[in-house]
Amino acid sequence: MTCEAAVDPTEDVCRPPADVPASPPPPRTTGERVRDTRQRLEHDVDCWVATVDPATGAPYLVPLSFDWDGTVLLMATAERSITGRGLAAGTGVRIGLGATRDVVMVDGVSEAVPTAALDPEEAARFARRTGFDPREATSSYLFFRVVPVRIQAWREENELRGRDVMLDGRWIADPA
Amino acid sequence: MTCEAAVDPTEDVCRPPADVPASPPPPRTTGERVRDTRQRLEHDVDCWVATVDPATGAPYLVPLSFDWDGTVLLMATAERSITGRGLAAGTGVRIGLGATRDVVMVDGVSEAVPTAALDPEEAARFARRTGFDPREATSSYLFFRVVPVRIQAWREENELRGRDVMLDGRWIADPA
Repeated sequence: MTCEAAVDPTEDVCRPPADVPASPPPPRTTGERVRDTRQRLEHDVDCWVATVDPATGAPYLVPLSFDWDGTVLLMATAERSITGRGLAAGTGVRIGLGATRDVVMVDGVSEAVPTAALDPEEAARFARRTGFDPREATSSYLFFRVVPVRIQAWREENELRGRDVMLDGRWIADPA
Repeated sequence: MTCEAAVDPTEDVCRPPADVPASPPPPRTTGERVRDTRQRLEHDVDCWVATVDPATGAPYLVPLSFDWDGTVLLMATAERSITGRGLAAGTGVRIGLGATRDVVMVDGVSEAVPTAALDPEEAARFARRTGFDPREATSSYLFFRVVPVRIQAWREENELRGRDVMLDGRWIADPA
């Protein structure tokens, strides 16, 4: 997965309403963005999960809770759900954390893990953070381990430049 | 597009963290959800836009600003961008408004409109609401008119039942 340098970056931005002066703070350094991104990964509970419905090829999107162990995003969903089937199909996943004016976007690859096969400590940690233990669900759930390949972080338009904080699975700067 | 009654609805929910008591207010009526959904469509500025990258088949997701005229969501993005190409490809779009614990999810069909072809009043209204006039952009932008086919609205798990507020393009209740 490569950075889409050829794509006009001006699409990926929400502009302030006309009655709000467009004077955001100066752009953060890469190190500051790495720090803020890790902060979100470590402390946020919910994210927006975009997948492709393998039955129709249509885009799908739901909010889900997640855990982060420093390397992998862990989430859980019903095996038969559209998101579950999309994550299992291996067509990729794109995850948005934060708010539309302070986003962290994660492109990753997902691996399904049966609830009984996940390390019990990881599963317990997931349950503590999200308030939900898929091992106790009445219907069939799967865990999904999402390994980030690329992560981007930006707030307003002046942060579109330099929004990459991870490329090819590697942080590109130390946290500030 | 039909309601996925066969799919376990428990996927589509973010649960409160373990240290927060899971005692949400009682579920809203359908009429209340229609009212709240229209409120968001009329007054929110940003949304999460999920599409499929036509070049790779991978999911894509970005925050974008939008306008709502009572029937159609209007957005704009660079013609060459992944979202622009996905919206033009006609493979569908799924849009999330609000927050992960108070979502409005819109499944729709999109139609590309060259900036010069859009009714000037619609374009001016878009510029007022979003603070951005794509007609003045230096690179090539397109407007996209997204007609909602299905809309769902829910907050916590107790609102998964009854989350449909629009089916087959029709509101299923009057606003409360």
